[in-house]
Amino acid sequence: MKKILQPEDWGLRVSQDGELMVGGYSAVALAREYGTPLHVVNEARLRETAEDFRQSVETLYPGKTSVHYAYKCNSVPAVLQVIRSAGLKAEVMSSFELNLALHAGHKGEEIVVNGPCKTDDFLRECLENQVRLIVVDSLDELAALNKICLAEDKDADILFRVNPDYTPRGMNQGAATGSRKGCAFGLDLKGGEVTAGFDLLEEMKRVHFLGFHFHIGTGIRDPKDYSRALRCLGPLLDSTRSAGLTITIMDVGGGFASMTTRELTSRELLVYQGIERLPSSLGKATDITFKDFTREVSNTISRYFPENGLPELLYEPGRGIVSPNQFLLLTVHRVKDRPGLRKWLITDGGLGTVTLPTFYEYHEVFLCNDVRRPRTEKVNIVGPVCFASDVVYRNKLMPQVRPDDVLAIMDSGAYFTALESSFGFARPAIVSVSDQGHRLIRRAEVFEDMVCRDLLNQSVKTKEV
Amino acid sequence: MKKILQPEDWGLRVSQDGELMVGGYSAVALAREYGTPLHVVNEARLRETAEDFRQSVETLYPGKTSVHYAYKCNSVPAVLQVIRSAGLKAEVMSSFELNLALHAGHKGEEIVVNGPCKTDDFLRECLENQVRLIVVDSLDELAALNKICLAEDKDADILFRVNPDYTPRGMNQGAATGSRKGCAFGLDLKGGEVTAGFDLLEEMKRVHFLGFHFHIGTGIRDPKDYSRALRCLGPLLDSTRSAGLTITIMDVGGGFASMTTRELTSRELLVYQGIERLPSSLGKATDITFKDFTREVSNTISRYFPENGLPELLYEPGRGIVSPNQFLLLTVHRVKDRPGLRKWLITDGGLGTVTLPTFYEYHEVFLCNDVRRPRTEKVNIVGPVCFASDVVYRNKLMPQVRPDDVLAIMDSGAYFTALESSFGFARPAIVSVSDQGHRLIRRAEVFEDMVCRDLLNQSVKTKEV
Repeated sequence: MKKILQPEDWGLRVSQDGELMVGGYSAVALAREYGTPLHVVNEARLRETAEDFRQSVETLYPGKTSVHYAYKCNSVPAVLQVIRSAGLKAEVMSSFELNLALHAGHKGEEIVVNGPCKTDDFLRECLENQVRLIVVDSLDELAALNKICLAEDKDADILFRVNPDYTPRGMNQGAATGSRKGCAFGLDLKGGEVTAGFDLLEEMKRVHFLGFHFHIGTGIRDPKDYSRALRCLGPLLDSTRSAGLTITIMDVGGGFASMTTRELTSRELLVYQGIERLPSSLGKATDITFKDFTREVSNTISRYFPENGLPELLYEPGRGIVSPNQFLLLTVHRVKDRPGLRKWLITDGGLGTVTLPTFYEYHEVFLCNDVRRPRTEKVNIVGPVCFASDVVYRNKLMPQVRPDDVLAIMDSGAYFTALESSFGFARPAIVSVSDQGHRLIRRAEVFEDMVCRDLLNQSVKTKEV
Repeated sequence: MKKILQPEDWGLRVSQDGELMVGGYSAVALAREYGTPLHVVNEARLRETAEDFRQSVETLYPGKTSVHYAYKCNSVPAVLQVIRSAGLKAEVMSSFELNLALHAGHKGEEIVVNGPCKTDDFLRECLENQVRLIVVDSLDELAALNKICLAEDKDADILFRVNPDYTPRGMNQGAATGSRKGCAFGLDLKGGEVTAGFDLLEEMKRVHFLGFHFHIGTGIRDPKDYSRALRCLGPLLDSTRSAGLTITIMDVGGGFASMTTRELTSRELLVYQGIERLPSSLGKATDITFKDFTREVSNTISRYFPENGLPELLYEPGRGIVSPNQFLLLTVHRVKDRPGLRKWLITDGGLGTVTLPTFYEYHEVFLCNDVRRPRTEKVNIVGPVCFASDVVYRNKLMPQVRPDDVLAIMDSGAYFTALESSFGFARPAIVSVSDQGHRLIRRAEVFEDMVCRDLLNQSVKTKEV
């Protein structure tokens, strides 16, 4: 992998004047027009990425396939609209996301529900809207679902989420979704919960088992990690069939890396937090594509099933679709140069706007007004809040930057918007850029938004609640 | 300090049935009435705490004093109203916070402006509203302010924020606001920026120097840390007076610990992130009060000034006022018991709701429906999102917990609400409880709130912005 990526790696280009350009428009001009912080969605490329994923899956797997985009990653309605137009369906975890999917135009049959905390109210809402599948995460949930199905006189198709206890090498704890020690997700394969689930199922008339789901992490760069995880599930697939059950669906989750960003490994994370040392490059892996991933998965799945008994293959990608097709523009307002120490770039987007991802991910940062200026110094980039943790990056290799320069934090499509807060400042606008032009898809927060839930003269209740 | 604190340490009590009670109301009943996640503000105690702070300062310092509450810590309007009614003024860092303070009824003369990223627009807004003081954070800002004062034909009273390069022992980087290496704040004392600031000031007719501000961190438990920091500023105070300038105001910032929670030290932070080991107690310090802090500060300040030349003493407390007087109720929806490993408690409030504080702070957690149940096991407490980082606490010593039990995460008053996000779920309601009863002060977010800034049919602009 290249040490420093170039705008072309995101489908962007650099103008003759050295400015970062997206779909024919200057990033700096967009920043001036709409104000910063500003998220910019590269709309055409987002659609292409989503289509590329869907087509890879359809082309490389001999059976039926479905791609359900993971809403939690980025649930901006206009972004969802683009993804839906590329033929992807929805994966949701909450009432909010279910309603977003319905508003986006999805029918219940295009919606998969997956999450560790489906309350009884939410399960009822899922049944009412006839969602396609409920991915059962725990035995308690299975029992609750059965009870609700009977009470509401409704049927539910389910998958069992299985925790395979497989963690890709080096993956940090905050990204490892398939570890029985590291996270809460799924029925514990090693602890016997899947077998217990089948026992419970035997008594259930309205809950129908269709197959399995597993998810092993996020930012995965090695396609073989999926086959390794599947190997952990092999005996379960055999015993399920031996028991006379049909596996109609295999849902292999998501977690595919964006090729332009990277989750830090556990070791890198501790080193960064301890001595502020970011990795100097994105790693040693060669570039891989969705085709490489889906080829590996397709081949492996095929190996575990007879040709005439291939299950439908479900995917739940999130990060890989949205991450690389959005970036965040920040204005540098002050630069502080302290003799003998690193410079500080004080920007209008810190902890509240870049949120958690820059804690454990390595993102490229461009100087939009002069992309080619050589990177000569390591600096600290911080936000606007009097709060020592209000940090974008410490110890980042950058060109010389001056006040009013505009930075692009690349790959802001995954989890940035989802996790942003109004930490003393309004949440930013989002602009979408395509060949047709640019348009505001989410306006910036204003004072009235920020206090609209506040009630100052509510009468006091005295009843013993 | 006690190993495990009791509800009485927060002015709460336990009913005969073992339930956590606040101002005569059961926390569990509040959770059922308003739904969870739910923040509960202990209104009477919040007012007492704020009054206690103000009175400590007034009583123990022989000169004039002012207490400006730091809005960034918790800017919920009803909370601000209580703090204002206790006689505290406002410290703001952004246009949003300035407008909040004005809406809360503060006049400009009661508002101090402090922050590392005051844009020119914001500085203009501050002048328009005749704020009392602008705390200048950088030389660039001083120059910008002067230019604006001249252009707008207005005067500005300022303090210099000085970075003393003093970090209390063990304090982690994310809390150390007075370190020249660790954070961006203030004019660099060691690098000569304060002297350079005075040189610039000489030419300025509309910008008036009134004194100094410093801030050394958050969660400070040792009053002597303030005198140690002041010692770093001693020579500056002398040279300022030698140059014929009067120091009218000394602003010693905030950072006073809440006695019921604690920021982890750098070492504890790495240990927790590396091997999930939380400290087993709150530390060895004995209980201290605001009086202990303000006595130390008053004595030290008095030592640096002649009796007839005492400056006005300004404080900017945040955490110490709000942190202990709010707690967060979560419902445990599922419990997962994995043979040989820790249990998982799956709650409705994770990363989006407890936000950053539980990453680097040690908070007590109570089982509200049975506070006295003995703590017998270490568990992982997580949130509702399919996201491996959606964690409240790993490895927390807890009683046996069952589904539908309600947990109270104590000390949620500082930064929890400020940093919360709508991560797939609606942001929670806030209820205030006093002797008069309970009232909703912020309603929970609903779907319409969550999409109100989204624009799906905005026309595309094609002009070359």
